[in-house]
Amino acid sequence: MAIDWIAVDWGTSNLRAWGMGPGGPVVQGGSDRGMGSLKPHEFEAALLQVVGPWLTGPVPVLACGMVGARQGWREANYRAVPCTPTDPAALVRVPTADARLDVRIAPGLSQDKPADVMRGEETQVAGALSLHPGFDGVMCLPGTHSKWVRVSAGEVVSFQTFMTGELFALLSSQSVLRHSMAEGWDDDAFDAGVAEALARPERIAARLFSLRAEGLLHALPGSAARARLSGMLIGLELAGAKPYWLGQAVKLIGAQALSALYARALAAQAVMTETLDATACTLAGLGRLHLNLKGAK
Amino acid sequence: MAIDWIAVDWGTSNLRAWGMGPGGPVVQGGSDRGMGSLKPHEFEAALLQVVGPWLTGPVPVLACGMVGARQGWREANYRAVPCTPTDPAALVRVPTADARLDVRIAPGLSQDKPADVMRGEETQVAGALSLHPGFDGVMCLPGTHSKWVRVSAGEVVSFQTFMTGELFALLSSQSVLRHSMAEGWDDDAFDAGVAEALARPERIAARLFSLRAEGLLHALPGSAARARLSGMLIGLELAGAKPYWLGQAVKLIGAQALSALYARALAAQAVMTETLDATACTLAGLGRLHLNLKGAK
Repeated sequence: MAIDWIAVDWGTSNLRAWGMGPGGPVVQGGSDRGMGSLKPHEFEAALLQVVGPWLTGPVPVLACGMVGARQGWREANYRAVPCTPTDPAALVRVPTADARLDVRIAPGLSQDKPADVMRGEETQVAGALSLHPGFDGVMCLPGTHSKWVRVSAGEVVSFQTFMTGELFALLSSQSVLRHSMAEGWDDDAFDAGVAEALARPERIAARLFSLRAEGLLHALPGSAARARLSGMLIGLELAGAKPYWLGQAVKLIGAQALSALYARALAAQAVMTETLDATACTLAGLGRLHLNLKGAK
Repeated sequence: MAIDWIAVDWGTSNLRAWGMGPGGPVVQGGSDRGMGSLKPHEFEAALLQVVGPWLTGPVPVLACGMVGARQGWREANYRAVPCTPTDPAALVRVPTADARLDVRIAPGLSQDKPADVMRGEETQVAGALSLHPGFDGVMCLPGTHSKWVRVSAGEVVSFQTFMTGELFALLSSQSVLRHSMAEGWDDDAFDAGVAEALARPERIAARLFSLRAEGLLHALPGSAARARLSGMLIGLELAGAKPYWLGQAVKLIGAQALSALYARALAAQAVMTETLDATACTLAGLGRLHLNLKGAK
């Protein structure tokens, strides 16, 4: 097993790592030791727990995500847009006790006005650009905090974050609506939710409660309620992100099932989408940074 | 201590009771044994724990709220609007082991389309009407699930529920925004939140995340972030409830501090408000039911 370098995607809840050979990943691992559960001095051990068995000598480690937050391993200051999504010169080196590790963290991006931040998605955008050189247009990265990103001439021009995924998690499992939810799915209910939120986004706080009332009064099935909730929140995001997607083709970068929902919702608005695998984009983005580092040596 | 009857406001989280004399409440008590924590056979004991010491002989008990839900003490089926807010003939009698208790539960209201329900607020609306006989217009009952109610000729014509209070609780204490919140208040931040949500309600999921980003990038104080969050969510409610308040005077029925926020937000839209005390309305509503019961004997 020959490893040239190690790619790390280190978010709030999880750590994922790949041992990279010349042709791509040759080994992968992960743990639930995300940034949110670690103190600064605990990161190195958490990393070694996953990648330690892969190490035969010194190896570059390139990491992105919340690991670079103020509460992370070491803060990697945001780079302000407009700028390229990543910059090898801005990588932040982290000293380690284990001499085999040569760790660098990619900083996130910030936008002054409207105030916004990302950590991790910038590397996916960079990866998408390296997979589609010369791309100019709009990317959408659905998730807990969905990002809409305008890319032009190799730079991130502007972006906007929507709390869609977190709202869905809170409402479906912590609010009064949890009594009305069940597993399963209903495409028609999802489509109806998208349509009503896009048509009347200002009514969202009332339409949310209607899911509970429809369950009580009209026996709305839990699977349909869950799908409609998802549709309403994605529809609300699309209503707010309209300046991004209107008249554009959109590249979706995200988990497959979630990207498929966004593709479906956008198709109903006559918007063409292409879905890129999120992990492939992360690895391509970190890979480009690694190439640049090698080139600089 | 002469008690003619007992008024009970029994919600999901709390039980409040008042021993009522000819001139109003003479004793009051309560507990945290709300509907949400009780099985049907536990309600009588929970009630006696509070009102037991007041009992010298048989006494009518009139209760409203979630105690009449399907998961409550005994289900009191919704009455469908348009209808009077309460109806003595629709009270649901609950058999008790203790012969001194003569318990009746007031049913809530339902609306077929858009599907909506209320339990407890109908009694406040009835109370407001008995305090302001002949009132015709719009009432707003801010809270966990805010209600907007159109009243005409003594009947509830239509109503709409907004999940505003629950969204505030979830977002301020369970979401990523909790890191950006602190106690305290900032009127200007509240006003700005109201204005931006009213102007662009479709952007709400993005504007919510901006509170986090403003904290990280521009050191937005936690008290201002909390006030702006409150303003955004109340502004979103006002955006959706516009057909209710536009060109109307609004009667607010709710807790004093929360009602004051709604009054402030509505005043910025040139809407006049009058605030009624929520407890006074509950007692007046239950009191009218008690009078009707007495009259029927």
